[in-house]
This record gives sequence, structure tokens and C-alpha cells, in this order.
Amino acid sequence: MSFIPIAPDSDFPIQNLPYGVFSTIIKDDKKRVGVAIGEFVLDLSVLETEGHFQGFDATCFHDSSLNRFMAQGPKVWATTRTIIQQLLSADEPILRDNEALQKRALIPIELVRMDLPAKIGDYTDFYSSREHATNVGRMFRGEENALPLNWLHLPIGYHGRSSSIITSGTTVRRPCGQLQADKTDPSKGSVYGPCRVLDFELEMAFFVGSSNNLGEPIPMNEAEGHIFGVVLMNDWSARDIQKWEYIPLGPFGSKNFATTISPWVVPLAALEPFRCKPSFGSAQKDPTPLPYITDPDYARGTYDINLNVSIRPEDSDQAYAVTKSNFRNMYWNMKQQLVHHTVTGCNMQPGDLLGSGTISGSTDDSLGSMLELSWQGSRDVALGDSGITRKFLQDGDTVIMTGFCQGDGYRIGFGSCEGKILPACQ
Amino acid sequence: MSFIPIAPDSDFPIQNLPYGVFSTIIKDDKKRVGVAIGEFVLDLSVLETEGHFQGFDATCFHDSSLNRFMAQGPKVWATTRTIIQQLLSADEPILRDNEALQKRALIPIELVRMDLPAKIGDYTDFYSSREHATNVGRMFRGEENALPLNWLHLPIGYHGRSSSIITSGTTVRRPCGQLQADKTDPSKGSVYGPCRVLDFELEMAFFVGSSNNLGEPIPMNEAEGHIFGVVLMNDWSARDIQKWEYIPLGPFGSKNFATTISPWVVPLAALEPFRCKPSFGSAQKDPTPLPYITDPDYARGTYDINLNVSIRPEDSDQAYAVTKSNFRNMYWNMKQQLVHHTVTGCNMQPGDLLGSGTISGSTDDSLGSMLELSWQGSRDVALGDSGITRKFLQDGDTVIMTGFCQGDGYRIGFGSCEGKILPACQ
Repeated sequence: MSFIPIAPDSDFPIQNLPYGVFSTIIKDDKKRVGVAIGEFVLDLSVLETEGHFQGFDATCFHDSSLNRFMAQGPKVWATTRTIIQQLLSADEPILRDNEALQKRALIPIELVRMDLPAKIGDYTDFYSSREHATNVGRMFRGEENALPLNWLHLPIGYHGRSSSIITSGTTVRRPCGQLQADKTDPSKGSVYGPCRVLDFELEMAFFVGSSNNLGEPIPMNEAEGHIFGVVLMNDWSARDIQKWEYIPLGPFGSKNFATTISPWVVPLAALEPFRCKPSFGSAQKDPTPLPYITDPDYARGTYDINLNVSIRPEDSDQAYAVTKSNFRNMYWNMKQQLVHHTVTGCNMQPGDLLGSGTISGSTDDSLGSMLELSWQGSRDVALGDSGITRKFLQDGDTVIMTGFCQGDGYRIGFGSCEGKILPACQ
Repeated sequence: MSFIPIAPDSDFPIQNLPYGVFSTIIKDDKKRVGVAIGEFVLDLSVLETEGHFQGFDATCFHDSSLNRFMAQGPKVWATTRTIIQQLLSADEPILRDNEALQKRALIPIELVRMDLPAKIGDYTDFYSSREHATNVGRMFRGEENALPLNWLHLPIGYHGRSSSIITSGTTVRRPCGQLQADKTDPSKGSVYGPCRVLDFELEMAFFVGSSNNLGEPIPMNEAEGHIFGVVLMNDWSARDIQKWEYIPLGPFGSKNFATTISPWVVPLAALEPFRCKPSFGSAQKDPTPLPYITDPDYARGTYDINLNVSIRPEDSDQAYAVTKSNFRNMYWNMKQQLVHHTVTGCNMQPGDLLGSGTISGSTDDSLGSMLELSWQGSRDVALGDSGITRKFLQDGDTVIMTGFCQGDGYRIGFGSCEGKILPACQ
């Protein structure tokens, strides 16, 4: 229990304590590190200046990114979490009874501007929901070749674009690019124009904390210690541009125009009580993964995180739910993704971001993209009872992703990951 | 002419003046920016301290990366080049007649250690040699589907891994990973083991200088002003890992274990006299590219850069040439790559690196990879008259790439891009 009053449906109880980079709305205010608690942001740079952190280099809380904190590894993360939980607890007078310190260290959350939590060196996106991969495969390659032959053997992933990762609230311009001139016949070439089938992809992503050296893969039993925390992610996708460009080297311009993440990084420690088995079962068989990528804790290797996507049309006050999914709907877990990413010797760095891939469930109301919800535009997706429908995203639409773990009387929430579509320039 | 004596076959005459980041071999010596001239490195941080640069922020020459210099754009690059050429010229006494300044500012090149020239935020690799794409297509997809249908319409590219870009001289560990269990039947699954078909890819790459904003594509007529300079690049490739993993999202672990670049960035200004038309012809027809990606200067849109690859086996003093190619053997030029990269709105940042893709010519002795030279291992590649042959790279092999433009009595050289293969760990 914290001395700060926290509603049962708050995203940020004392059990959560996600990290973020913020500044206040005062002009030219310096960016620094904070933790969300109820309706406040706890300014860790103030606590550092006051000498509340001991035993590690806490000057990193004055930085404009979490990278130096991430780099210090799981022991320092645990120490920090313990100190903050203690300071916020109802039994501890240091902050509770010091109004002057509260005034400096606790900032009402509506007065802050959030920034990207880290300087992201490299960003990788996986493709780890079997349902999503199968659905896309069906549409693009037909029922017989739906799931690629390698899919059950390794977590397929690709390198993404880190410069265009933006934080929740940043608008997204509808991209222009090359589109296949004839929908069914690629031999007819291409035309230039605005994307006509703009989509979201419901994902989560994790930040790498401590690094490994080039040429030294991270083994399974050390993987978890390299994972700092988790955010929501919208991997905006221009489906028509993607369709034309992706053979043979994968998506490029269809993805690199924007990727939105939620600004609060929820630490693995906060998710610990919500460990669970994946939706589809407790073991990977048929085939069994190769030993290097077998997770002995697979049956408790993922987390029960409820995920929601809603769309708010322009000029509307209301956002309409379009899908509900769960982080459990992943075949490959985060540890497996990280281990596979480094198996050839790739070096990870603090602040690297690894996306889950679109998280689709097995039912029609748990699909993680409009491509799947509208089955390639062949059916309407209703926005509640408003009478409005969508096949893909329209200009002015705001896409809102949220997620939470439901505890007993509290939630571990992820805040919001949202973005509004602006019309194309040309 | 410089007052510094320069051999006619030197890579670094006064017409070149490539930028790099160096430190001396003295312990803990600070990294800073220098320019190669003959057998020396000119220390720009010393010149800055002495006040030789005016009219822009030259404190960037004390940095451990070129990023802040790159960000300042083509006018500042031109000013800097003019100042340095003047200081080094035979007619100018300031440096020529000041022995004390020479001692501080001119460091014998054998006494420096080169670092990566920039902090590379994002790295992209293209696939812009028609011969290479056709050769690979023939091997992987058969004669009829050799060149993908989109290939002549856009410069295909994919996002690469920036953390594992290393500078010439760094050793490369043979990667382990997943290999298709049966060479011809992917339905048999995979095994874990060291890569058996390790390859080089002969490439060049350019550094982006000034940035563009997210959502604002770089138009063709502004593209050249965003290109800072060019390096040699070896895109090491694990062909067996690649073959198994690359469907449907492209190469991943097969490429992200190492990419080597030469440390000296040759500015576009130095290449200007070597502008030329591409090998295959002076215009792209059949199809004509879409207007946004049409380069009106296409007939003079590339550069005549001779490229060489040699292999030095372990315990040998001699390196044996295995291929000769030329930067002209590219269908899509650098400007087209950059314009297409940003067409959907992707933001480029100073220090971003864009690779050409493997540069193969149309003859058997100008192919840019062992995959092509040995035609997928079906023929031996002789290492000169040594009696040694290769199909792919062996442990202990050092791959050496060099390149130069031949002027009248001088060369614009790129230095060396080399790396030695260490055996796999397991």
C-alpha cells in the first residue's frame, strides 16, 4: 500500500512502478527519469539529488534516456525498485511526511510530457503469433503454404527502422509510395500514390537492458536478466506498399514511416505475478525446438496481459473497441526471441527494442490487425453501435492501444499507445 | 599539390581528404576526427584548437564520431575541405613552415588506430546490382523467376543491424545457427551448427549527412546534398543460415553477426571528377522508373570506382585476387536509394549508413560474392597460382577489399576493408 491514493483501476499502483522519460510542460524543462504512481510522476532525479539511491550510479536518473540505467543490469533494477517501493509505502514517513519534498518529487501526471524512454540503437520486430502468421499466410500465399516451413523452428524476425519510433500521441502521416498497379497481376508494374490500406498492428515490445559482446550469444538461462521491461507497440503498416515491395527481402517503406510505443516501460518484476503458460499449451512439440532455443520454463514463460485496441473516428468523442487479445497468444516467448536474435553472435545494446509481432488470438474478435479483422477488406468491422464501419484506417482516425494485468484489487497497466492519422501530403 | 610528398599510387592524395575517427596507439588516447593525407593523419582537433576553422561549429572535430560534422550539411563540408586543401597545399606556409604545428597536427598513419567513423543509428542494405540479384535469383528461385517482378521498379532494400558494424581489421567469428537439415527438402526441419558456407559480399555504402523530418520525403533534387561520403563494405553472409531463415521477412541472423566497413569516409566532392554513366547504359527504360525516383542526371549519376577483393589464407603472406568489380555496376544509384528510402516519410539521421548491395558485374571474374564466383559451390575458385582453391571462406582466411578511382597521375583510394575469420566457438 502506498500513502498516495490509488484507484483500483489505475494503471500505476505501487505494484507497477514503470519507468519513463518526462519533462514538465514548462518551456525548455529538462528531460529526466521518472516513475508513474497513481496520478503522479515520481521524479527520480530529485530523489537522486537528495541522496536516496545508494550502491550504484544513480546519476543516470538525470539523463534524457533510460539507457545508462538499463545498462546496469537486473541487480541495480531490483535495488532501485525496492528503494522506490519503500519510499512510496504507507509506513514510510520520509516522503509521506515531507510536504516540501513531495512538492518537488511528485508531479501531477497531467503536467508532464512524455518522451521516448530510451535512445533505441536497433529495433527488431518478430512474427511470433502463430495465428497472425497463419492468417497472413492464408491471404498472401494460400491455405496450403499458410505457415512458412521454418516458422515452428525459429522465431522469425527482421530488423526494423529505429529512427521512426515515436511515442504515444505523436501524429502519423499517411504514407505515399509504390503500389502494385494491378491488384492481382504484379507484372503490370506499379503506380505512385497514397497508401490505400493503412493498418495498425497490435504488438508489445521489450527493451534490452544489459548488453552482450559481439560473437557471444546469450544463452537461455541468462536471457531473462537481459530484459529490462515491456511496452505496448503499434507497428503501423501500409499493406499495399508492403505487398508490392516485400519480396524477397521483407517489409521496408511499408513499415519505416512510423512505429508508436507507449512511454512507460513496465519492468519484468511487476509482471512476475502474472506469469502463465501460452494460450495454445504448455509445451512446444511437433516439432520440439532445437536445444539452444528450448525454454525449460516455457510453461511459465509468458505473461497474462490483456490487450485492447479501439478506434476513435475524427470529430467523435468516443473510441470503439475493435479487438481484444492477450500477450499469451504468442508461440515464441521473449527469452526465445532474444536467444535466437543473438545465436549467430549479434550484440545487443541497452535500449534495443524487440517487438513481438502482431498478437492475434484464435477467435474473430481477437485479431491484431485490420487486415485480419476485415479479412483483407472483404468484411466490414463495426465501430460499436455507431453505424460507422471500417475495413482499414481512415484519415482522422485515432488508434488507441491499452493493456493491463488484472491482479487481486489492482492492475498492472501500460498506459496508452495512441496515434492519429493525418492525411497524405500529396 | 601538397607540400607532403605523396606517391602516385597513394590512396590519400590532396584530391581525396577522407574523414575518419582515430586515436594514437598511446594508451587511453582520446578519439578525434582526422583526415588522411599520404602517409599521415591530419588531426583536425588540433587545427580547431589553433583557430583554423571559422564560420561554423568546428568543435565537432574533438568528437569521437563524425555525426555532428555530418549534420552540418554540404556548405560546411565544402568550407572544411577548402580550408584543409589550402593548409596542405605547397604554396601555403602556415603548416608547411611550422615544424611545431606539423609535429602536433600530422601523425604518421602507422601510429593511429582507426575507429568507426560515426555512431550509426540505422543501417540499411540495398540490393541494387541487377547482375547480383539475377544470379542469386537463378540459384534460389530458378531461371524463370530470377529477377523479382518489382526489382526494376524500385531499389529493393532492407533494414540491417547497426550494432554489429565493425571497422576494418576487426576479426569475425564464424557464426553458429539454424541450418536446413536436408539441403533440398525444407520440410525436414533444421539442425544447429556452425555455418558451413560463409561468404563475403563486396559492397560500398554511403553515410547520410544532414537529416530530414519524419513524414517529409527527400526529393530527388535535394538527395545529393544529404550524402556525406562513401566507404567500402563487406556484408558477411552465412548462406546456409540465410537460406533457411529468409522466408518471408528477409535475412536476419545470417547477416547480423558482422558487417565490416573501411574507416575512411571519402567525401562526394573527391569523387566528383569520376562521375560516369552506369555500366549497363545511360538511361533506365523498360520500365521507366516512376517520376519521384527518376534521376534526371542518371547518365552521370554514378562513379567509376574500381573494386577488388582478395583472400589471404592463414599462414600465408600473400593475398590472392578473387574478383574485380566496379561501383558503376549498379542499376539504382545512391540518390535513388535515398529518395526511395524516404518516400513513405522515413526520417534519415546523420550517421545513418546505406549499403549498395553486392556489386557484381556481368562477367565471371567480376562477381561480388563467393556464392556467385563458385556458383553455389559447384566450381572451384583458384587463389592465383598457389594451387589453393576456395568455394566459400575457410577459418583463418582474411578477406581484403580495396577500391580506387584512377585520376591523371593520382588516385582517390578507399584504404582497406578487411577482416579475418575465426573458427566457430562450438
